[in-house]
Amino acid sequence: MFLAIFLLVAGLGEATAENLTKNTASAMRVNAARLESDLRTLAEYGKTTEGGVNRPAFSEADIKARRFVLETMKDAGLSIRLDEAGNIIGRLDGLDVSLPPLAAGSHIDSVPNGGRFDGALGVLAAIECCRTLRDNNIRLRHPMEVIVFVDEEGGLVGSRATLGELDDRALDVITQSGMTVREGISAVGGSPGRIKAAALKKGGLAGYLELHIEQGNVLDSRKIRIGVVEGIVGINRWEVVVEGAANHAGTTPMEGRQDALLAAAHLITAVNRIVTTIPGRQVGTVGRIKAEPGAVNVIPGKVTMSLELRDLDVRKINSLFSGIQKEASLIGEKTRTKISFLEADAPSLPALLDPDVKKLTIRSAGELGLSILEMPSGAGHDAQNIARIAPTGMIFIPSAAGISHSPQEFSRPEDLEAGANVLLLTLVKLDGK
Amino acid sequence: MFLAIFLLVAGLGEATAENLTKNTASAMRVNAARLESDLRTLAEYGKTTEGGVNRPAFSEADIKARRFVLETMKDAGLSIRLDEAGNIIGRLDGLDVSLPPLAAGSHIDSVPNGGRFDGALGVLAAIECCRTLRDNNIRLRHPMEVIVFVDEEGGLVGSRATLGELDDRALDVITQSGMTVREGISAVGGSPGRIKAAALKKGGLAGYLELHIEQGNVLDSRKIRIGVVEGIVGINRWEVVVEGAANHAGTTPMEGRQDALLAAAHLITAVNRIVTTIPGRQVGTVGRIKAEPGAVNVIPGKVTMSLELRDLDVRKINSLFSGIQKEASLIGEKTRTKISFLEADAPSLPALLDPDVKKLTIRSAGELGLSILEMPSGAGHDAQNIARIAPTGMIFIPSAAGISHSPQEFSRPEDLEAGANVLLLTLVKLDGK
Repeated sequence: MFLAIFLLVAGLGEATAENLTKNTASAMRVNAARLESDLRTLAEYGKTTEGGVNRPAFSEADIKARRFVLETMKDAGLSIRLDEAGNIIGRLDGLDVSLPPLAAGSHIDSVPNGGRFDGALGVLAAIECCRTLRDNNIRLRHPMEVIVFVDEEGGLVGSRATLGELDDRALDVITQSGMTVREGISAVGGSPGRIKAAALKKGGLAGYLELHIEQGNVLDSRKIRIGVVEGIVGINRWEVVVEGAANHAGTTPMEGRQDALLAAAHLITAVNRIVTTIPGRQVGTVGRIKAEPGAVNVIPGKVTMSLELRDLDVRKINSLFSGIQKEASLIGEKTRTKISFLEADAPSLPALLDPDVKKLTIRSAGELGLSILEMPSGAGHDAQNIARIAPTGMIFIPSAAGISHSPQEFSRPEDLEAGANVLLLTLVKLDGK
Repeated sequence: MFLAIFLLVAGLGEATAENLTKNTASAMRVNAARLESDLRTLAEYGKTTEGGVNRPAFSEADIKARRFVLETMKDAGLSIRLDEAGNIIGRLDGLDVSLPPLAAGSHIDSVPNGGRFDGALGVLAAIECCRTLRDNNIRLRHPMEVIVFVDEEGGLVGSRATLGELDDRALDVITQSGMTVREGISAVGGSPGRIKAAALKKGGLAGYLELHIEQGNVLDSRKIRIGVVEGIVGINRWEVVVEGAANHAGTTPMEGRQDALLAAAHLITAVNRIVTTIPGRQVGTVGRIKAEPGAVNVIPGKVTMSLELRDLDVRKINSLFSGIQKEASLIGEKTRTKISFLEADAPSLPALLDPDVKKLTIRSAGELGLSILEMPSGAGHDAQNIARIAPTGMIFIPSAAGISHSPQEFSRPEDLEAGANVLLLTLVKLDGK
């Protein structure tokens, strides 16, 4: 399709995607030095002594960083608007005024004491793509938008607003900055009172692409350059309560015990066994545990712990959980304890990304000679929300040793460049699709 | 031996143990109503609304309760002295002034929000034995002493002073009362500055007997009336540290994890398996656990937990621990974590009680038609200290449902009576041995 269009469409006064030959399109590259320089400058906002950034949404560092990004967008020739949620949207007009915009972006807020690449890369690479198009005198058919979603780390706040799903309760949440989401959105120039107006209709974007560091160790350990994201996993969480009987650790014989921690230990090993004995990339984690009364000389009478299951397929999550429940019931009988599961938050549903966008991404990486792996994203991203209203894709580059949300977060310059070029070529392909 | 002596010794002006026939000795019984009445009165000191007592050592309730016990001793015809540690010693003179005293006792302090029987029974039953001897016009050959050990729940303080092992560090410990041990001992009339003078030499007592509630469920669940204690278990404690790698629970595939909590769970189940797969009454407990960072969406990178092993035989404790260490090393390899064991406090060594005293106790219970079980004490008692300087025995009666250190602590009146009668007959046998 791509090839056909480029060969058929006649040239205009200005160069357009349509008049590029396949070779020209494939030959276009981002300016890696410029991108890296922007990343370095952005990392100055909230810079920590350990080399990371501390830039929670709505903090002074975040507000200053937004100003820098806005200026960078202006310099790149983008016209700027702020939606009601405080999402920054920079726009390059397209050739066809009837078309909805193609968008790319991410976020620039960080977790407390986080890293320099998470989010920042996706925003700055999208701006760099606009500059590269301009440098090559190319205008896309679609308008091109760069979106900086507000408060991603606080729970995908900006993209939830884009779905029209940011309600009063979400606006009242207190963020890491100390402000509520509502106060924070006001502070960055949004209009929380008219938040619903930030909503985009389905089809309001022609497509959305997000370049991001993997935040895991899959690409780095397998020395693969580009991860093509198939979807963002669904997350189900439970509070597990194990009830036994607290008793004297000296006077209660082993056979007379109802040890809640022993039961919990059996369950933790069972979760691992159940999750790992079927093929697939599902994960299951017990991250939090509390044993009561918690004294060295008292048999624990009660344990509460978390259980989290993630997968791209909600049916697999359900089937794993059902296996875990069955095992829990056997463990309960064996240890004379009662094990119950309370669903924690509402589950976050898996978001499958667009198969056509995925194909174009794979093709772009191929043209760049980059090895790829199709993979799920185990972490949440704004893309999972935007996927509900537009064909969406995500591109991962390796995180050194899989480290993220840490000052040690690092991605190699050649991977930053490779990711930005895959983003650029995929945008051009999407435009011409 | 007992029989021979009683048949051979001629009567004196006053009845003595020596001139009792076997039948008379076996026929002598405590006054159960009087004992129960004392237990009820003592339970008024520090009484809680839930039916227990809150009488930590040196608290106002403890000090008042000590006064009541002292008066009760006086009424029973005992002469009273206080040693330097504040231990109360009530004495009935014996026939043979050259003999060291036979002693019985326990403690009257309680854990915070404890029960009515723990300690109290052993003290009041010993006084009741003195009264019963007096009622029957019997004087023992040995002086008979009733000892109320000070601050048992704070770490066997009174009996440690009897060993001469209460040092300055122990005197500086802050007790539940808010006072240091030193201040508390002064408050009850002891002389902490001359604490070493409270020490008894080996052989300073002809014997020591302690009647106590079991505080476990062994007797009650098996419907056995009397526990004849073989020894007080040794206790070894470790702090177990499991080091893995904290990582994102979504982006880290199962096979790339170094989950410290998974390793800890394997170890907890291994401790249980290792402790229960050899015969014996050893116990092993993990009572405390902490997983860090402790978030639902982060793989735990570090776990610290307690490990406690108890047995009558220090070699068995060592062998169990060595098995656990071996297993930990396998688990560490399998889960790519590092597991280390740090010895916590100095181990408390097992204390074997006197086999002859045990035989006399069994014989006494037999004469009373009571079922017995030879068993270890899983909890610590003053008897374990006194065992190092005198032939010592302990008599257990059932704790309903094994509950202790709780307002629900309960022992049936018929068991209180049975225990006191076994104490009485065993004392008489020890006197005549």
